[in-house]
Amino acid sequence: RAEMTNPVDIIPYIDTESVSWIDLQGIGNEAILQQVGQVFELHPLMLEDVVNVPQRPKVEEYDDQLLLIARMVRCQTHSDSFITEQVSFILGDNYLLTVQEIPAHDCFSPVRARILAAKGSIRRMGADYLLYTLFDAIIDGFFPVLESYGERLEILEDEVVTNPSRQTLEKIHRMKRELLTLRRSIWPQRDALSSLIRDSSELISDDVRIYLRDCYDHTVQVLDMVETYREVASSLMDVYLSSVGNKMNEIMKFLTIVSSIFIPLSFIAGVYGMNFENMPELKHRLAYFICWGVMIGIAGSLMLFFWRKGWFENYSTIVKRRD
Amino acid sequence: RAEMTNPVDIIPYIDTESVSWIDLQGIGNEAILQQVGQVFELHPLMLEDVVNVPQRPKVEEYDDQLLLIARMVRCQTHSDSFITEQVSFILGDNYLLTVQEIPAHDCFSPVRARILAAKGSIRRMGADYLLYTLFDAIIDGFFPVLESYGERLEILEDEVVTNPSRQTLEKIHRMKRELLTLRRSIWPQRDALSSLIRDSSELISDDVRIYLRDCYDHTVQVLDMVETYREVASSLMDVYLSSVGNKMNEIMKFLTIVSSIFIPLSFIAGVYGMNFENMPELKHRLAYFICWGVMIGIAGSLMLFFWRKGWFENYSTIVKRRD
Amino acid sequence: RAEMTNPVDIIPYIDTESVSWIDLQGIGNEAILQQVGQVFELHPLMLEDVVNVPQRPKVEEYDDQLLLIARMVRCQTHSDSFITEQVSFILGDNYLLTVQEIPAHDCFSPVRARILAAKGSIRRMGADYLLYTLFDAIIDGFFPVLESYGERLEILEDEVVTNPSRQTLEKIHRMKRELLTLRRSIWPQRDALSSLIRDSSELISDDVRIYLRDCYDHTVQVLDMVETYREVASSLMDVYLSSVGNKMNEIMKFLTIVSSIFIPLSFIAGVYGMNFENMPELKHRLAYFICWGVMIGIAGSLMLFFWRKGWFENYSTIVKRRD
Amino acid sequence: RAEMTNPVDIIPYIDTESVSWIDLQGIGNEAILQQVGQVFELHPLMLEDVVNVPQRPKVEEYDDQLLLIARMVRCQTHSDSFITEQVSFILGDNYLLTVQEIPAHDCFSPVRARILAAKGSIRRMGADYLLYTLFDAIIDGFFPVLESYGERLEILEDEVVTNPSRQTLEKIHRMKRELLTLRRSIWPQRDALSSLIRDSSELISDDVRIYLRDCYDHTVQVLDMVETYREVASSLMDVYLSSVGNKMNEIMKFLTIVSSIFIPLSFIAGVYGMNFENMPELKHRLAYFICWGVMIGIAGSLMLFFWRKGWFENYSTIVKRRD
Amino acid sequence: RAEMTNPVDIIPYIDTESVSWIDLQGIGNEAILQQVGQVFELHPLMLEDVVNVPQRPKVEEYDDQLLLIARMVRCQTHSDSFITEQVSFILGDNYLLTVQEIPAHDCFSPVRARILAAKGSIRRMGADYLLYTLFDAIIDGFFPVLESYGERLEILEDEVVTNPSRQTLEKIHRMKRELLTLRRSIWPQRDALSSLIRDSSELISDDVRIYLRDCYDHTVQVLDMVETYREVASSLMDVYLSSVGNKMNEIMKFLTIVSSIFIPLSFIAGVYGMNFENMPELKHRLAYFICWGVMIGIAGSLMLFFWRKGWFENYSTIVKRRD
Repeated sequence: RAEMTNPVDIIPYIDTESVSWIDLQGIGNEAILQQVGQVFELHPLMLEDVVNVPQRPKVEEYDDQLLLIARMVRCQTHSDSFITEQVSFILGDNYLLTVQEIPAHDCFSPVRARILAAKGSIRRMGADYLLYTLFDAIIDGFFPVLESYGERLEILEDEVVTNPSRQTLEKIHRMKRELLTLRRSIWPQRDALSSLIRDSSELISDDVRIYLRDCYDHTVQVLDMVETYREVASSLMDVYLSSVGNKMNEIMKFLTIVSSIFIPLSFIAGVYGMNFENMPELKHRLAYFICWGVMIGIAGSLMLFFWRKGWFENYSTIVKRRD
Repeated sequence: RAEMTNPVDIIPYIDTESVSWIDLQGIGNEAILQQVGQVFELHPLMLEDVVNVPQRPKVEEYDDQLLLIARMVRCQTHSDSFITEQVSFILGDNYLLTVQEIPAHDCFSPVRARILAAKGSIRRMGADYLLYTLFDAIIDGFFPVLESYGERLEILEDEVVTNPSRQTLEKIHRMKRELLTLRRSIWPQRDALSSLIRDSSELISDDVRIYLRDCYDHTVQVLDMVETYREVASSLMDVYLSSVGNKMNEIMKFLTIVSSIFIPLSFIAGVYGMNFENMPELKHRLAYFICWGVMIGIAGSLMLFFWRKGWFENYSTIVKRRD
Repeated sequence: RAEMTNPVDIIPYIDTESVSWIDLQGIGNEAILQQVGQVFELHPLMLEDVVNVPQRPKVEEYDDQLLLIARMVRCQTHSDSFITEQVSFILGDNYLLTVQEIPAHDCFSPVRARILAAKGSIRRMGADYLLYTLFDAIIDGFFPVLESYGERLEILEDEVVTNPSRQTLEKIHRMKRELLTLRRSIWPQRDALSSLIRDSSELISDDVRIYLRDCYDHTVQVLDMVETYREVASSLMDVYLSSVGNKMNEIMKFLTIVSSIFIPLSFIAGVYGMNFENMPELKHRLAYFICWGVMIGIAGSLMLFFWRKGWFENYSTIVKRRD
Repeated sequence: RAEMTNPVDIIPYIDTESVSWIDLQGIGNEAILQQVGQVFELHPLMLEDVVNVPQRPKVEEYDDQLLLIARMVRCQTHSDSFITEQVSFILGDNYLLTVQEIPAHDCFSPVRARILAAKGSIRRMGADYLLYTLFDAIIDGFFPVLESYGERLEILEDEVVTNPSRQTLEKIHRMKRELLTLRRSIWPQRDALSSLIRDSSELISDDVRIYLRDCYDHTVQVLDMVETYREVASSLMDVYLSSVGNKMNEIMKFLTIVSSIFIPLSFIAGVYGMNFENMPELKHRLAYFICWGVMIGIAGSLMLFFWRKGWFENYSTIVKRRD
Repeated sequence: RAEMTNPVDIIPYIDTESVSWIDLQGIGNEAILQQVGQVFELHPLMLEDVVNVPQRPKVEEYDDQLLLIARMVRCQTHSDSFITEQVSFILGDNYLLTVQEIPAHDCFSPVRARILAAKGSIRRMGADYLLYTLFDAIIDGFFPVLESYGERLEILEDEVVTNPSRQTLEKIHRMKRELLTLRRSIWPQRDALSSLIRDSSELISDDVRIYLRDCYDHTVQVLDMVETYREVASSLMDVYLSSVGNKMNEIMKFLTIVSSIFIPLSFIAGVYGMNFENMPELKHRLAYFICWGVMIGIAGSLMLFFWRKGWFENYSTIVKRRD
């Protein structure tokens, strides 16, 4: 394992029989990429796809090389979102060239550790097996991201039913958007992998094809989970809309209860506030108290009516919930 | 039928001509699995798929073995939900190794009973027929779960129209979510079964293929039912939203009726409560009673108006419903 | 044409060269079915599919027999809904065995009439043509059911826009659910028919394949109609939701008009009901009448304002509609 | 070009080498159709498909004839809707028999004109080219219908946002329903055309296949437009629902502004209308005017509050819009 | 590079061995097109497709020519929308004829520059490579349009949540409509490209096929982005609807708070405004002040109640947001 800055230094490694893994970190320096292109005799289109990010994940066969464009995701450290990064694999007979979009942070560390420790079958097998190991590491990198989405969805589900606010709406929409991006990353990788397994490139041995088939299954599993989360998020949007309607019902019920009780009472009070000269009731000694009795009676029967319609039940549950 | 704890004890059974069924319950003990792997000469990927649950249901052919990952469901005893569990089948020439994720509770009891009773064709036929029998038992295990969902859906349908509450909304959303999980379990099993029937593995005889075709039809039937339930649940969400809107209409109608009747009356009362010095009506002897007459007339004609608009009809039906 | 109760009596009919149609009505009596199975040498899976209803419609080829599971629908006499019933066809070289789930009521009467009248080509042609005739009768049986749904949909469309009630909502949801069931009946029949036409079973002659192609077209037509109805029903749910919103707008407009006119007027009346000692207006001789004038002026200009906003227009159309 | 009423008169035309086009207008007279069937030796199924309208558009090959069922649309003269009509083409070696469902009004006039004028390539080429010309005329007949829908959609889009009423809702739903019917007409024609191009019938020459390919492209274009219109109409339904909600917001804002301003003021007026003996404020000489000042102050600050919340802005735009 | 107005002048260029690119700008002049048709011996259908815009993008092979209909988009300078224009490519053995619908503004300028500068591989390679270069330029022309949509979507997302108005709704609907048009432009180009790569036309060399594969990937990328934007726009419509509901809740809360506080207080004021002769409270010296105390107490406890229900919290956030 050596770090180089001059692409020409690679040449001796290519011609050896042993498998070489060349990992180019960062695609900023065009001159180096140009040199690498010359050293490995890359097709101009290949180089273009490697440099012009973002490309759609895909597999392309050239004469004696195979280009695999993959997309790596990882959770962002300080936010809920994730970052995607393009990784290009160029598989030759006995070398594997990987080009990463962003120098720092990849998910290849466990693979590197296994190589250095000379553990596992990576050292014994060819460059195609190395390609599988790295691609598998990329797919495995999707699972922690998906888990964080699963957790966020569960929190949102609680929030939507108990206390739907404007922020909840924004969160659901943002989640739907991010899941769309995630799907756009994983979907073409499945297709690429599928064509890698099916097509008869000589660069991939049959043994490795069995391993790739396993990797394909994991990709489908990721896709399944993304689709499930998207459907749950869509359903959450409906739940939100219904929750908002429910909340309005509660508000309207409160307004209706208060208004329906006091507006008729106010009317009665208004009647006996009239200044007609001949209003017999006004003169009765107990009239005022009878009037209060009538008013309390009306209020009580209205309360009973609302209680029987179940408006209080529903209302009390919410109050409990918020405590 | 024997219970063993040391995998090496299996060896004599494998080499006999008769069919052996080895059922490994639980995947917690890695050492035993490792030993089993050596005894049966399992491909490392095979062992990985068996151990790392959850895997997507699938069929994979290896040199002289066939791996079938299936997913078993069963209703939970104390709740509405269900539990899924991975069952891995490894089919060899004259043995079938099954590995269950969770030791207790499987749906193989009827199969075991039939074997012990030496009944049915299980004893006469090969390991592939045993595989079919067990897989069929797994698929049949979906039907009770689906039935419980069918019943819950019907209860929800009633609840949504007669008395939609916040809990109803949560229930619909949870049901949609669980049906998604159920679909994710059954969908890949259909694909696995389909490839099992189509592909020409030598481990599956043509006779058993006919049986698997039947099993495939049941899987499709399960899938059809899950999809139907999902569409009904989606439609229920719309019904819920409409019901909430309907309920709001009822509330608003009540508020409007009460307000529209008493606000104008209060205005009249207010007018005759004014303290202008020159208000001829106040002096009339019958003014107060005429005023009452006018107010009752206004209230009556408003009531008639609302009645003709059908606001009371609709309202009365709800009251009836709730008794 | 003879009615038999003992399956063994069929044997002489099977071995003749002429085509025999054996129609088993009802699947309750297992012993008879077992005997029939022996007489016709049916595969155990075949018998299972015939007996364990409901099965998914399908075609399955056995050595020298062909199993076709179909689903027959008919309108219920006293309700809007429909009944489905499984019909199993077992086609042999020169016989056709049909097994109906429910004894009474099938849609084969016209076929029977044609056979007895020795009319048409049914008598001249083979068992496969008979299969076609009966299956065609089943598919034709879908059309009256679909027509009844078409009519119900039109009634619902009127109801939704003119007078949407809680019952309308239930009806739409029930219709959607029933159409789902209908689709689940017809969809697999199309697939079965398609595989019957495409596959090269020797039991179906090329001449009959042309007829089956025609039958297939009708099946697709049924499916098209079911799908169209489902989309119309889904759209109706949206229309309902909008109608509920519209109705609420009308209610709110009424409340707003009444409140907006009388609340300010009540305020004015309240002001002159105050008991301040120094309120110069109260002493003026015409003050009361001026006050009335101002109030009428305010009410009038508010009415004009609402009229110009078009709130009355919209409102008047509804009143007209309901008369 | 001759008009005949007796089918037997056609016989001499069939046997000539030149291409004959027989156009049967109307399918009411069964006797004539029966005779035509005998003259052309039509398969009984063919005749059935021609007579029993509506059939699904399709292509069927018989021994030396080809049946093409097409569906012709045209705008209705006095309404927005369209009429569909079945046209059956029976293509023989050197004749083309077309059967129209409704005698009057077809879209073949330009073709007839070109034949009579001996212009174009129709006269030189075979019956298959004539089939292409007529079918192309049918597909071209869809475009004016689609244009009328495009215009109606644009009118509806304006109506939905500026002034959504109950009628708008009905119009959107009707449009969705009609577009579904239109799709059901064009979709199977595309399939029929596709199988006509792909299948190797000897009745269609390779030269004409190139022309049919062009016709196929137009069919796809029609389908694309129908699908686009359907999606726009679906989106319009959502816009309508949102518009209704928006309108309700406007109504509620108005009610809230009026109520929130006058209810507190009425309360103040009510306070000073109380008859307590000891109310010091009442005696103050300027109290009444101070009271007015306070009330105007409250009203003003509430107005300012609403204005800052943007409730008036939004409201003013609507008033402008309606003028 | 020469500009010509008489099509006959092209003839010498066609017969040379070097590759000629003839670019016809505008399709208004039919005479010239007719002449061009004769010069290049175009099939009549080809000419028709070139002239009758809009055609669906497609590839059609003729004897020794290949027709590719493409659709070019570009942002409009003074508006958010985009313009589409049909470009027809006719590829011959050593010439490429392009016909543009609108003379001015195409996206071929960089290609022209490279040809004139004799840079790149365009000069060295055949007419098929030129076709690729131009088509690639068309696909690349979609990206700036998509970017402008991405930006507009982000602005809309902000607008929908913070301040949803009637204009927002119109914008979302218009965006959905335009994205549908965009999809209708790009979708068939993908199909055309796919058939160009797959089919074995001799006019396209294998080397160029590799380049077209790259171009195909970009087309799929454009399509992916359009679909993603459409799903985001659909989700925005739901967000809008929920936002409208949220806003209504805020309005209703405000109304309910004001009404619930002042209506009961007005009732109390109304009670002591009654004119009963015997109302003991009225005579008490501190009664008026006690009455005020009670009213303030009621108002305070209602405020506390609303505050505990969280109605003020939510409300305050909006006020902050608008500042």
